[in-house]
Amino acid sequence: MIDEIKIKSTQKEEYIDITSRIASAMQRQKRVNGLLHLFVPHTTAAITINENADPDVMRDIGKGLAEIVPTSGFRHSEGNSPAHIKSSLIGASLTVNIENKELCLGTWQGVYFCEFDGPRERKVWITFHA
Amino acid sequence: MIDEIKIKSTQKEEYIDITSRIASAMQRQKRVNGLLHLFVPHTTAAITINENADPDVMRDIGKGLAEIVPTSGFRHSEGNSPAHIKSSLIGASLTVNIENKELCLGTWQGVYFCEFDGPRERKVWITFHA
Amino acid sequence: MIDEIKIKSTQKEEYIDITSRIASAMQRQKRVNGLLHLFVPHTTAAITINENADPDVMRDIGKGLAEIVPTSGFRHSEGNSPAHIKSSLIGASLTVNIENKELCLGTWQGVYFCEFDGPRERKVWITFHA
Repeated sequence: MIDEIKIKSTQKEEYIDITSRIASAMQRQKRVNGLLHLFVPHTTAAITINENADPDVMRDIGKGLAEIVPTSGFRHSEGNSPAHIKSSLIGASLTVNIENKELCLGTWQGVYFCEFDGPRERKVWITFHA
Repeated sequence: MIDEIKIKSTQKEEYIDITSRIASAMQRQKRVNGLLHLFVPHTTAAITINENADPDVMRDIGKGLAEIVPTSGFRHSEGNSPAHIKSSLIGASLTVNIENKELCLGTWQGVYFCEFDGPRERKVWITFHA
Repeated sequence: MIDEIKIKSTQKEEYIDITSRIASAMQRQKRVNGLLHLFVPHTTAAITINENADPDVMRDIGKGLAEIVPTSGFRHSEGNSPAHIKSSLIGASLTVNIENKELCLGTWQGVYFCEFDGPRERKVWITFHA
């Protein structure tokens, strides 16, 4: 593992832009080209790439997911089944190409940690592969 | 390919924990660190990471997906379009970091093969990359 | 990067089979085995693997997604929030194993570029890793 990002979410549901923290972790590495693997070791959180220009986009994604995922009729006693469903829909891992130590992202893209059952202390594991 | 896991699903929809089978495949390898790639070569199945402590979580995910995905109004004559939709929502591939031959998963995480159109004989392809 | 596929979508929503274009890019490489990384540098598009035998399958997936994702109640002024939601649900990246320069896909699988806010000029970035 090249780095572990620690995230302290403050709300029940929250989309946190971690692009610059990932870029910094990358800058500290010796290798310049490869595949960056981002992994969320939690089952009620996820990671996604989407627009980081207008903050309303991630807000709308949260609102959309809230309408898409049912909120009742579940058995799991912790009561956070909607968060588990969102985690599997969005996904716990991402891969991004690295060239010259830079994340190869599109103009409007950022990497977001998705908290679906906060507030909690969370982690994102970063590994780098040839 | 380092291994192919064969899965015999027994129900129309089923979430099968394959974590220990993947870990065993990894143990048989010589290389100790890298990126594990898991791939489902089917279009009505998927692979996801979620909680493997309380079995109600995967049951609730199945119930949630059943409510999310429409069940009628489709053209595909095989009648399994909802299964194709679930496959693209959850995804056919996953990557997990490997350190010292161990899958780097969070405390509550397991890897699940998702059958959306069973019962069938299925496969998961495992490859290992530097 | 080993290649960049340029795609000109012609409709608001469109699912374009890019399997043969990816296979061609792979054929032009020297390396024969590895992990292919496909990345969509856009926030209102995605990439998925699903059936490419019956075109009704991708049509039904589009119809299903249209029913799943809400179409109103958003703040983002461009009016394309449903497209951003679909992008995060389906995902902007994919990994596929390569053996002997061939994409390791199942019998019925193809790789689809998913346009959710066209018509536009789009790209898919292809990288190859050990």
